[in-house]
Amino acid sequence: MPRTRVHNLMVSADGFAAGDHVTLEQPIGGAEAIFGWFDGRVIHGVQDVEGPVTVDQALFSMWGQGIGAEIMGRRKFGPQQGEWPDDGWEGWWGDAPPFLTPVFVLTHHPRESIEFANGTSFHFVDVSPEEALRQAQAAAGEADVRIGGGPSTVRAFLEADLVDFLHLAIVPVVLGSGARIWDDLSGLEERFSVETIGTSSGLTHQLWNRKR
Amino acid sequence: MPRTRVHNLMVSADGFAAGDHVTLEQPIGGAEAIFGWFDGRVIHGVQDVEGPVTVDQALFSMWGQGIGAEIMGRRKFGPQQGEWPDDGWEGWWGDAPPFLTPVFVLTHHPRESIEFANGTSFHFVDVSPEEALRQAQAAAGEADVRIGGGPSTVRAFLEADLVDFLHLAIVPVVLGSGARIWDDLSGLEERFSVETIGTSSGLTHQLWNRKR
Repeated sequence: MPRTRVHNLMVSADGFAAGDHVTLEQPIGGAEAIFGWFDGRVIHGVQDVEGPVTVDQALFSMWGQGIGAEIMGRRKFGPQQGEWPDDGWEGWWGDAPPFLTPVFVLTHHPRESIEFANGTSFHFVDVSPEEALRQAQAAAGEADVRIGGGPSTVRAFLEADLVDFLHLAIVPVVLGSGARIWDDLSGLEERFSVETIGTSSGLTHQLWNRKR
Repeated sequence: MPRTRVHNLMVSADGFAAGDHVTLEQPIGGAEAIFGWFDGRVIHGVQDVEGPVTVDQALFSMWGQGIGAEIMGRRKFGPQQGEWPDDGWEGWWGDAPPFLTPVFVLTHHPRESIEFANGTSFHFVDVSPEEALRQAQAAAGEADVRIGGGPSTVRAFLEADLVDFLHLAIVPVVLGSGARIWDDLSGLEERFSVETIGTSSGLTHQLWNRKR
């Protein structure tokens, strides 16, 4: 039975998963203190790690394993708001977005799909989390679906009880403001079993598995 | 620069990595107490885990990431000794061996290669570790090479200083006899940096990265 998975959700010690204002100049809304711990190259597998392969990197490398589609919020795709301007925007990632699968972008403003030669395609849908997951699962076939963020998208899928697995990494920085990951999720732990480890880098990893 | 990697090397508390006598009836030489901790289905990725995705399984799932070829000892391929009997033996794994890449089997008795439809092929070579690695790297292209065991094969590659990365898991069982992993490797730690974590299952994971 395919899973719905969240990976590499980086949260500050005070519970913020991203910065306040995503703009072209601040793709993560000013939350560099969190994301500085993350080497984006790791998401494709430990073979791409430069330097030692650490426990952190091994855990982050689950990101791409057996994923057949991703669902992301609009602000992960771009900083625009409202109607899409005619600006040729195709995401932050250039000619080779790292997803390599269909990606469903949740937006109230659907537009034409975008396809890349490396297997990544973006599809813009104005639907509920349930319906987005149904479409993503149809695209993924036997593979799993990743909920790719940002924080409000992850929270919406957690609220709807659509997440089977969540890998969260707590970064020992105090951000002070930004997007709170835990809002409106009181009692979430009752639906999950949680395994926690610390690593030598100072990160705390939590693996949340939905109880069956 | 592609790496040479060892994954999921399971070692008992008293330093044995497999049992004494590999036979058809005892494929791991009687070391079930070690391998009972290992769910073989995990090696392909966390999407294949049944039940919760644990830190153990996340670490084991590095096994297949970015691997382009494997090197194994003859006793991992089969229990026969000396000249190959005409018994139709094609390994322990049936019609779909899990390797999905070329596999180089070290033996003093070369024989015809065997190819499977799923991308696995076995090539039997009577060469030094250095030459086996050269051939495996040529087959792997830009991808990494995995040293697949058994213990004496891993030890030979460690002695020859051909291993870049080793993931070792110490299982809290006392085996009492079998294949010692650490023989002839005094001072190995000087060539590596080592990160160690324990997990809730009782396993101790060590990630050995060769110093550069």
